[in-house]
Amino acid sequence: MKLLRVGAAGSERPALLDADGVLRDLSGVVPDIDGALLADEEALGRVRAAADAPGELPVLDGADGAHGADGADGAELRIGPPLARIGKIVCIGLNYHDHARETGAEPPAEPVIFFKAADTVVGPNDTVLVPRGSTKTDWEVELAVVIGRTARYLGSAEEALGHVAGYAVAHDVSEREFQIERGGTWDKGKNCETFNPLGPWLVTADEVPDPQDLSLRLWVNGELQQDGTTAEQIFPVGEVVRYVSQFMTLYPGDVINTGTPAGVAMGRPEPKPYLRAGDVVELEIGGLGRQRQVLRDA
Amino acid sequence: MKLLRVGAAGSERPALLDADGVLRDLSGVVPDIDGALLADEEALGRVRAAADAPGELPVLDGADGAHGADGADGAELRIGPPLARIGKIVCIGLNYHDHARETGAEPPAEPVIFFKAADTVVGPNDTVLVPRGSTKTDWEVELAVVIGRTARYLGSAEEALGHVAGYAVAHDVSEREFQIERGGTWDKGKNCETFNPLGPWLVTADEVPDPQDLSLRLWVNGELQQDGTTAEQIFPVGEVVRYVSQFMTLYPGDVINTGTPAGVAMGRPEPKPYLRAGDVVELEIGGLGRQRQVLRDA
Repeated sequence: MKLLRVGAAGSERPALLDADGVLRDLSGVVPDIDGALLADEEALGRVRAAADAPGELPVLDGADGAHGADGADGAELRIGPPLARIGKIVCIGLNYHDHARETGAEPPAEPVIFFKAADTVVGPNDTVLVPRGSTKTDWEVELAVVIGRTARYLGSAEEALGHVAGYAVAHDVSEREFQIERGGTWDKGKNCETFNPLGPWLVTADEVPDPQDLSLRLWVNGELQQDGTTAEQIFPVGEVVRYVSQFMTLYPGDVINTGTPAGVAMGRPEPKPYLRAGDVVELEIGGLGRQRQVLRDA
Repeated sequence: MKLLRVGAAGSERPALLDADGVLRDLSGVVPDIDGALLADEEALGRVRAAADAPGELPVLDGADGAHGADGADGAELRIGPPLARIGKIVCIGLNYHDHARETGAEPPAEPVIFFKAADTVVGPNDTVLVPRGSTKTDWEVELAVVIGRTARYLGSAEEALGHVAGYAVAHDVSEREFQIERGGTWDKGKNCETFNPLGPWLVTADEVPDPQDLSLRLWVNGELQQDGTTAEQIFPVGEVVRYVSQFMTLYPGDVINTGTPAGVAMGRPEPKPYLRAGDVVELEIGGLGRQRQVLRDA
């Protein structure tokens, strides 16, 4: 299923993108899409039953699904993040062989962990703000993993995959000076407001048979900048979830951003093409949808 | 005011510790103590009016306040964290001159930021779990700052103090191997479950005239280990809040742990006295109350 949330920021309603690309209202079936839903077999069953007979769900007013869902111009209905009340966002750094090479870093011996606050999450097509004082705002397309079952000291990568509710596109926007040159941990450059566009959809895990075979692409002002595949991940999704669960408990509604492939601005020759107000970033992951953000100054 | 939340984990009710040390039920006045309350002048006014006439509030059954509030043996009523629905927890590293010296680090030129997830928060007297595989679980008594108004690109430390709703005792439990020796940022050793006891009280800012004049003490198995003062903070509370607001937006219900003074296990000669199951940690900050945790294995 492709689950999403549409409407004004803070008052989104749950929706479903059906097999014909039509956006259908789920608010008569479940109150919202959040960790509580993902952990609730009975409620998820109602959503599945509704998805199996989509004609019985109301079409959402003012939007045909394909239009609203791909973030193209003229979408009448704002798409919010596909998950409400996100707990924590655990991020994996340097998790692609090609990205580690471009940053001049050795591939890490074990996953690098940092955090984004859930309040950095915005919809997939919302404005992204260049922080005040920033000269090094950078892009990172990432596969986001959404946790569906409490994960604590998991024994294997296979077991860990059973705790994944689904996947989504994440944009791990990063300010490299704040991240690297201002002392302390990377978190300082990862938590500026609007720095984590998420969505458009939460695609349930059953529709992603192999999370290590997904293409990731990102364009800035129409030029392709990142063109990768999750096959390049140093630590695949199951191993990441297993590993993280040794250090912290993952709860339904938590998100893991699993790292970015090569092609970020930081990896380019000088002058590096960092983002500025007016730039347009588009990103997509195969089968998970597409985002489009216009940047402006905070 | 000393606000707190009492009851079983997940179903705490709001309460007030009155001037006579009697615990009084606030659940008839406000639904809970959280960021929404702290940002709501009208609701806060109702709490203040109730606090001014505490005799009209019901005494909480099964507890006399002093007993329940200091976490001593035999307290019938569990004290939860004094704040529900915490957004993010921003932590400041190496923020005391004496602690920077004991770890062998230079005092940082600007604040070091890392994160704890809100799901690590437990009540002040709840069990703390030594993570599986841990040999370096350490203690850190800290002054926690609770944000009451949205803080974004603040102009001065003085302005920043106006965004602080109150203060509490925090225990920033830390696993030093996970934090320092396992690659990546400190977050890996800061987010194990139960790693942030908070409370007993949220003391409103009007009762803390000088946050740079608070004593902090921590004992392990009855032996004093940390004995510091916030006067030793490299970056005082107002400056910390101002600084953090340049990198991220702080919202009502966010918490900042402002760093720990000297005296942690990591700073001792070998063999360093890291925590093990059965150890008892007690900590207090002058005017903000006292915590007591028994450790056990995860």
